[in-house]
Amino acid sequence: MCAGDDPTCPQFELHRQNLLDDLDAERRGFLKSAFVATGGAAAAWGSSSLISPAEAQTAALGPGKPTYHYLPATAETVHWGYFSKLLKPQLEVGSGDYVTIEALTHHANDDAERMIKGDPGAESVYLWTKDQKGVNRRGAGPVDGKLLGRGSGEGFGVHICTGPVYVRGAEPGDILEVRIIDVKPRPSANPAHAGKAFGSNAAAWWGFHYKELITEPKPREVITIYEIDATGQRNWAQAVYNFRWTPQTDPFGVVHKTIDYPGVPVDHQTVQENHGVLKNVRIPIRPHFGVMGLAPKEADYVDSIPPGYFGGNMDNWRIGKGATMYYPIAVAGGLFSIGDSHASQGDSELCGTAIECSLTGTFQLIVHKKETLGGTSLAELNYPLLETQDEWVVHGFSFANYLQELGPTAQQTIYEKSSVDLALKDAFRKMRAFLMTTKGLTEDEAISLMSIAVDFGVTQVVDGNWGVHAIIKKNLFAGASV
Amino acid sequence: MCAGDDPTCPQFELHRQNLLDDLDAERRGFLKSAFVATGGAAAAWGSSSLISPAEAQTAALGPGKPTYHYLPATAETVHWGYFSKLLKPQLEVGSGDYVTIEALTHHANDDAERMIKGDPGAESVYLWTKDQKGVNRRGAGPVDGKLLGRGSGEGFGVHICTGPVYVRGAEPGDILEVRIIDVKPRPSANPAHAGKAFGSNAAAWWGFHYKELITEPKPREVITIYEIDATGQRNWAQAVYNFRWTPQTDPFGVVHKTIDYPGVPVDHQTVQENHGVLKNVRIPIRPHFGVMGLAPKEADYVDSIPPGYFGGNMDNWRIGKGATMYYPIAVAGGLFSIGDSHASQGDSELCGTAIECSLTGTFQLIVHKKETLGGTSLAELNYPLLETQDEWVVHGFSFANYLQELGPTAQQTIYEKSSVDLALKDAFRKMRAFLMTTKGLTEDEAISLMSIAVDFGVTQVVDGNWGVHAIIKKNLFAGASV
Repeated sequence: MCAGDDPTCPQFELHRQNLLDDLDAERRGFLKSAFVATGGAAAAWGSSSLISPAEAQTAALGPGKPTYHYLPATAETVHWGYFSKLLKPQLEVGSGDYVTIEALTHHANDDAERMIKGDPGAESVYLWTKDQKGVNRRGAGPVDGKLLGRGSGEGFGVHICTGPVYVRGAEPGDILEVRIIDVKPRPSANPAHAGKAFGSNAAAWWGFHYKELITEPKPREVITIYEIDATGQRNWAQAVYNFRWTPQTDPFGVVHKTIDYPGVPVDHQTVQENHGVLKNVRIPIRPHFGVMGLAPKEADYVDSIPPGYFGGNMDNWRIGKGATMYYPIAVAGGLFSIGDSHASQGDSELCGTAIECSLTGTFQLIVHKKETLGGTSLAELNYPLLETQDEWVVHGFSFANYLQELGPTAQQTIYEKSSVDLALKDAFRKMRAFLMTTKGLTEDEAISLMSIAVDFGVTQVVDGNWGVHAIIKKNLFAGASV
Repeated sequence: MCAGDDPTCPQFELHRQNLLDDLDAERRGFLKSAFVATGGAAAAWGSSSLISPAEAQTAALGPGKPTYHYLPATAETVHWGYFSKLLKPQLEVGSGDYVTIEALTHHANDDAERMIKGDPGAESVYLWTKDQKGVNRRGAGPVDGKLLGRGSGEGFGVHICTGPVYVRGAEPGDILEVRIIDVKPRPSANPAHAGKAFGSNAAAWWGFHYKELITEPKPREVITIYEIDATGQRNWAQAVYNFRWTPQTDPFGVVHKTIDYPGVPVDHQTVQENHGVLKNVRIPIRPHFGVMGLAPKEADYVDSIPPGYFGGNMDNWRIGKGATMYYPIAVAGGLFSIGDSHASQGDSELCGTAIECSLTGTFQLIVHKKETLGGTSLAELNYPLLETQDEWVVHGFSFANYLQELGPTAQQTIYEKSSVDLALKDAFRKMRAFLMTTKGLTEDEAISLMSIAVDFGVTQVVDGNWGVHAIIKKNLFAGASV
């Protein structure tokens, strides 16, 4: 029976309305606008694949029709600061299903008035009194928080990740295709800021700039709050104010001299807000998910900061609406999560963060079985691959699989060993493999082509395992079918 | 009196025709097509500046009207493999003048049949018999060539540079603006290849890939010859064939086991041509000048390979038609030269070269006097800055001024010390300075903006002094005038 999720049902519009009526007002609003934006449900369901028809046929779409799911972000549905193959799935979906997932920024407490107040989901996640936390563990560190005394999980990993989603039929060795159907900002729930969404940019101690500051006081951490138009009318963000981080005492009494633990509430009585910064500067928005990926198999709890073969915190701003990601599946069900949503970011994410801004995405998840990959663009894929309408984007890291390569202390030592040079080498190797394996080129052909037609860029230099991406235009191969 | 170079002259068309008739057939063809492409001389003369009207007014256009000049590439007008403040100018121009300059690729002898034969300019430059060379010195090394025995100049620097052009009024501390009005491929002069132009890509020992090869024989150098449509009808290149470098004996009897000296003629009897490589792959062309810049002041003879504050071998494919470059002037007259012309290149120039292809460019050269720079986008500029219609592009290098920073052995040690990480740091510092100086931002504003709206990419990792560029969109500041 159609539950408002089968566009071929003659009663679809009615059933759809019933489904929408069952949701709360905010989510209802989102769903309506999302369906308008994608040209209605039928268009969304029938959206053409970015990959070739032959490749689409290799997808394990399962016996039934796609189903639609919704996963809100609440204290119960998020894991904060880590990936884990041990996590209980929040949702189980079939290959080909659609799912809307809410992502909350882990920087919302930089300005709780604008980014948390009045928002039940955000309030449940960020709840923190002297007696309790909505989400206690934040990071892959010890739960007792006695190692560095920062708090449970020690902030070894910072991102609020919604999920995981278990995809039926996904097994190690398969590939999960994630089509990003829609991305929307999460409007401020504070009536004083109706129609607006907000994000925070932290120029923090882990930024590339931190030891290079030229003006006093040195060093310093600076938070800049940005405003985004939640109605979608304007495609640019603008700064509202900034402030320098001062020691903040969390509700458990721990003093955070620097930004060393996620979700610490900033007491705005203790900071100096400078309004009018970046006056009249308009930042083009590039809404995307900094974190998107699957559970790694190498460890039970994995810091959410360094990206790897499983995706994770890749921080490539191209992973937005209309893009498709492909991830190697390491554990049964894949265990897909998203987080670290960004309104905009530049290649390098230089100062440590983007415009960190809660977003809601709609995705289609498709399993490609291992045995069907030969001869497709996914053959031998062992890293996260991005496809847009015009490009293939290969992702290199300082260490392709740091969890394996750096041994038992990988999650500590990765922060000491990264370089852009290493990431470039990895991106080169992966692009060569892509061209030789999926385009049938010789090594000599692939290397020449990389020098004359592939662009290498700096994805990020702030996530432990640094990233370089390599972009090749699809139209290079357009003549091959002539 | 108008010599065919003053479009305001009532007899301009007639005088112009006389000028064209005086030139040989090939150059005549080029000039005609260039003038058609730019919408006629008047349009070229009246082309609007990419910089603001206020900035244009700071230009020292001099007392007279702009004049048009033509500088062909011949054995007399090129310097091969080095920059030198001691070089006699080949041309003296006024600020605001237009000049068409021919650039010859230093890889033409990889396939002399296609890239040299029948072309008087190229033949004069490449002349090399057992008794003489058209251009003896190739590189900044010793003229006697006894250091490594490779040949005069030792190949410490490889690019055929046409020039220098002395710009009247240009003094140290001023800025030279170079507007790229037009860029054309140089057609093959061999009747067997009419209507086509050709380029060579060398995957060479200095490439990023060289020690990373996975197929045998290892190591190896590979030349791929590409064909470009010289008529401008097609915007893509395609491979013709490739071959592996074999030891080549030059006319003086020196054996070159690797590509260690520029312009060594390849004896095609000694190599195996593989036709049909990269079949049906179409490489979008991005015609540009890998080398463009001024004479540095720090040394008398400077290797043409490592780029620096003076520009030189920057290898940024964005330096093509419609772009404008700004260079700090280090010596009187600036001494502008071009070379290393490319039909296409990707960010990183991974294997060591681009599609090395002779091109002819038309430029307008404008001097901006030091005392007029305050308050403009050129204030305190001490590195090569690129402007396109939509973007400012800042160029970082592993060493901003390696000639000064690395001391007396700079020209050797630069090849041992570069990294992408260092180049990224330099690009960050320069973009910060650009935003603080020319946009009036605080350091905190600049750093936040760099993280959310500036894209850092890998320019090249094969030129000794590696490069990272930083791109910022102009429209960020469009609101500032509202």
